[in-house]
Amino acid sequence: MNPTLAKINALVSCSSKLRRVALSCYHYSKKEYHNDGHTRDRRKLLTGTAGLGIGLVVGVAGYHLIKGQPHYGWSSGEGVGERIDGLPTYKMVDVGKHTNKETRMWITYKEGVYDITDFIESHPGGNAILMGVGGAVDPFWNIYAAHKTPQVARILEQYRIGNLDPVEAKENSKSHDPYSNDPNRNPELVASSKKPFNAEPPPKRLVENYITPTEYFYVRNHLPVPLVDLKEYEIEIEGPGIKSKTLTLEELKQLPKHTITATVMCAGNRRSEMSEVKEVKGLFWGPAAIGNATWTGAKLCDILNSLGYDESNKEVLHVQFEGLDLTPESNPYGGSIPIEKAVDPRGDVILAYEMNGQPLTRDHGYPVRVIAPGIVGARCVKWLHRIVLSNEESPAFWQRRDYKGFSPNVVAETANWEKAASIEELPVISAICVPSKDQCVPVCKDNTILVTGYAWSGGGRPIVRVDVTADGGNLWVEADLVAQNDARPSRHWGWTLWEAKVPVDPSTKKVELWAKAVDSSYNVQPESFKHIWNIRGVLNNAYHRVTVTVTR
Amino acid sequence: MNPTLAKINALVSCSSKLRRVALSCYHYSKKEYHNDGHTRDRRKLLTGTAGLGIGLVVGVAGYHLIKGQPHYGWSSGEGVGERIDGLPTYKMVDVGKHTNKETRMWITYKEGVYDITDFIESHPGGNAILMGVGGAVDPFWNIYAAHKTPQVARILEQYRIGNLDPVEAKENSKSHDPYSNDPNRNPELVASSKKPFNAEPPPKRLVENYITPTEYFYVRNHLPVPLVDLKEYEIEIEGPGIKSKTLTLEELKQLPKHTITATVMCAGNRRSEMSEVKEVKGLFWGPAAIGNATWTGAKLCDILNSLGYDESNKEVLHVQFEGLDLTPESNPYGGSIPIEKAVDPRGDVILAYEMNGQPLTRDHGYPVRVIAPGIVGARCVKWLHRIVLSNEESPAFWQRRDYKGFSPNVVAETANWEKAASIEELPVISAICVPSKDQCVPVCKDNTILVTGYAWSGGGRPIVRVDVTADGGNLWVEADLVAQNDARPSRHWGWTLWEAKVPVDPSTKKVELWAKAVDSSYNVQPESFKHIWNIRGVLNNAYHRVTVTVTR
Repeated sequence: MNPTLAKINALVSCSSKLRRVALSCYHYSKKEYHNDGHTRDRRKLLTGTAGLGIGLVVGVAGYHLIKGQPHYGWSSGEGVGERIDGLPTYKMVDVGKHTNKETRMWITYKEGVYDITDFIESHPGGNAILMGVGGAVDPFWNIYAAHKTPQVARILEQYRIGNLDPVEAKENSKSHDPYSNDPNRNPELVASSKKPFNAEPPPKRLVENYITPTEYFYVRNHLPVPLVDLKEYEIEIEGPGIKSKTLTLEELKQLPKHTITATVMCAGNRRSEMSEVKEVKGLFWGPAAIGNATWTGAKLCDILNSLGYDESNKEVLHVQFEGLDLTPESNPYGGSIPIEKAVDPRGDVILAYEMNGQPLTRDHGYPVRVIAPGIVGARCVKWLHRIVLSNEESPAFWQRRDYKGFSPNVVAETANWEKAASIEELPVISAICVPSKDQCVPVCKDNTILVTGYAWSGGGRPIVRVDVTADGGNLWVEADLVAQNDARPSRHWGWTLWEAKVPVDPSTKKVELWAKAVDSSYNVQPESFKHIWNIRGVLNNAYHRVTVTVTR
Repeated sequence: MNPTLAKINALVSCSSKLRRVALSCYHYSKKEYHNDGHTRDRRKLLTGTAGLGIGLVVGVAGYHLIKGQPHYGWSSGEGVGERIDGLPTYKMVDVGKHTNKETRMWITYKEGVYDITDFIESHPGGNAILMGVGGAVDPFWNIYAAHKTPQVARILEQYRIGNLDPVEAKENSKSHDPYSNDPNRNPELVASSKKPFNAEPPPKRLVENYITPTEYFYVRNHLPVPLVDLKEYEIEIEGPGIKSKTLTLEELKQLPKHTITATVMCAGNRRSEMSEVKEVKGLFWGPAAIGNATWTGAKLCDILNSLGYDESNKEVLHVQFEGLDLTPESNPYGGSIPIEKAVDPRGDVILAYEMNGQPLTRDHGYPVRVIAPGIVGARCVKWLHRIVLSNEESPAFWQRRDYKGFSPNVVAETANWEKAASIEELPVISAICVPSKDQCVPVCKDNTILVTGYAWSGGGRPIVRVDVTADGGNLWVEADLVAQNDARPSRHWGWTLWEAKVPVDPSTKKVELWAKAVDSSYNVQPESFKHIWNIRGVLNNAYHRVTVTVTR
């Protein structure tokens, strides 16, 4: 065996099929490639597709997490990008000539040079991979650090064709860790990704308080947490038919103060259950990517009205938000909500500067984030920097190529992102928090077990009922709604905590508990994940099912 | 055998179990009954419970319909209430002494006297039956004419204990048919009840037009259609914090004219499918108790604001409506909606005097009905006569003891009507209209069949997707949304018509088609009826399943 291939095989433990790919890559490296004599302006290329690509890379991260067990720590694949003796050495200028199918597509990582042409189509993140083509992916992977797993390393090394000039490799690696300024976190939070930081509390923490303590509130970051200098902080507001305005935090605080109790949830909450049906892309969330807090700030409708917005303005259909968190190409995180929600005084959209009575923490958007209650967390943009009124949804990747639902048979190749509706209001959901999966649960004398959890629905719709069963739905027990505020339907933004004493068969050791909720519009949860499965693993609101062992 | 019993047995074809009941009733008639010397004032008794009782009787009607096949014609049970030789004869004054468990409870119908004490608890309509106790049920049955079925006759005759004085029986029967003034109807409508009139079009009529022609719009009447004299017609409006007002039709028409396209649906639409899982109470509706029309009128929020309502008024939580349609005790049909919906200019609640560009027809509420778009049809009170602002929901039976959802294991005895939420906004629903059940469907050359239907959701939430399958959900096809207006989410009151070309297995003759819809809050339909079954058979929004025969 060719000694180079032998070394590749030692580095990567790949299947025989993948080994064949590695072999063919090796042969490709011997070919003469066409040089189109064109120096690519990567920034120019990215302008149109940056958002897209970046988000898809974020998708990749989760994808790989889900393929294996969830990872709570990060380790770069051992040996990935190290020099391999016997392979040809290239300069960055050579790599830069390989940017399309005709020239083949090359990338570098550390001292590795890779021809990923044949991997492009099976890249779980789709076209995102094109961002790095013809150059080093080191800076991208510093931001989307979820790539730094043994699984990704294994895949990458299968496409190894050469070594990069060591001086240039050192230069590429110099980029600063963009996460070095991230805040400290509660170690009890369970991370599905550390860079960017994404973590949820143990589910039992959710049912201890109606208001989730900030330190137990799930964190969903798409990028590094920005360092904000209050002296320079301001929010730009602009759009057709309104006066443009830059608003400082002090000015914001002088506007009428409005406090709401609102649940915020990630569209991927409970994704790990959907992935059991069939692999989905995204972070491996359990049932605790949700929390209920009080939020204080100024009402967005007041601000927009004061700048001259009125409903006769038919040019405005959406309110776009941008954060201070930036992609490697300096594109901000973004999302939008329909104008009707933004300007409805009953919509209660606020620019929040306090959470649970305290200034926002950095992980939750300090100094100001949007709270659009009843709407998916992804639109509640943190570190708010800019508000744009527009006839279009936010151009950001997360609005246009992420956070949308699809029919169960749609796959990456058939997904019509333009046609699919952006997730805004969320559907009714519930989860069992105690007991947790595989827990041993003592049975009460009356042959029941105590089950507690949360339920919530988007759009300001309160929960009117929660049903729990321990026998597959032959006997549904109505749960007590033990914590629920008295906000009226259509403005009921907070969740409901519930508990139920559920009869169990005295002869059974293993019991599968199910919970389902009903909201004020009598929408119900779907029974199972099979028929709501979707490629992005969002909207995971099937009955929550938890198997426990009963002890006597 | 006693010749009287023999005659009873000849009249009624009862099971052996029921025969035992008949026997025991006969023995009871021989007993001496306690006379409490109290002349009951039935009207007084009814004041508190009339609404309750009446509606439950309406419930009974549907119940009996569902027990057998649906009835599209009415025939009183043959021989019911006829004189039976050999039974003792009573006067009304005797019957009036039997009004409680101690005295036993008697009723009369035509010339029959019945002791229904032992039937009370199994009466599907619950306490409603008490309304008639101690007197003649003839006038009640004239209103709730659905009692006039062979099934009800059979049950009644099992409790026969005697004959009523024929002169008094003639007097009781004199009451005028309250339905004699009902309008003529399109004979193509399929009636699940003729008195009151309740009927739906053949489902295929629904997908012929985006706007349902008035003559094909389902009719759901709870009582006889009132005869309205326009010269005397007015709407009374009153409540805390507003000026009282009586509004004539002419005054109403002078207010700003507002037209909306809105779907109106009965909460019992598709009930016949739920009843296949387990018997439910209510009319035997197919999938066409729904329609989509344009409605023109004045906005309720404008009217209430003009009378001085403002949001600081915390005494008002509900807006109650009363119709001109009256129960035998002269109680009006009624329902209410939350004040937030009524006063939200975006809620689009109107007092409508036109449907599809024409004055309302009598069956649809002439001269004025409420259209509360996105909310169940039961609150869109027809023949509107009175509007009351209140801190309570409408006291009417249909608000307090009907049109509520329950957990699947709740039965009549355990239903907590006070606790259950009134149905207001409706959940997402869809139905296949063509092909219909058991139809023979030609397969296209590409091995697909064409399926069309409607989808809709309450609360102003547009449909964003409809999925159809012919193989139990292994392959879901996304339907084309062929007719949908461009109203924005939160004010999208109209339905969506869709069509899909669904691949079928070439080797199969019988195919079960399923349809499910997704609305803009990504709420979905539940898979089956098992876990949404409820005693009243409302909210029947499981996947619509239609079995057809495939022809080639």
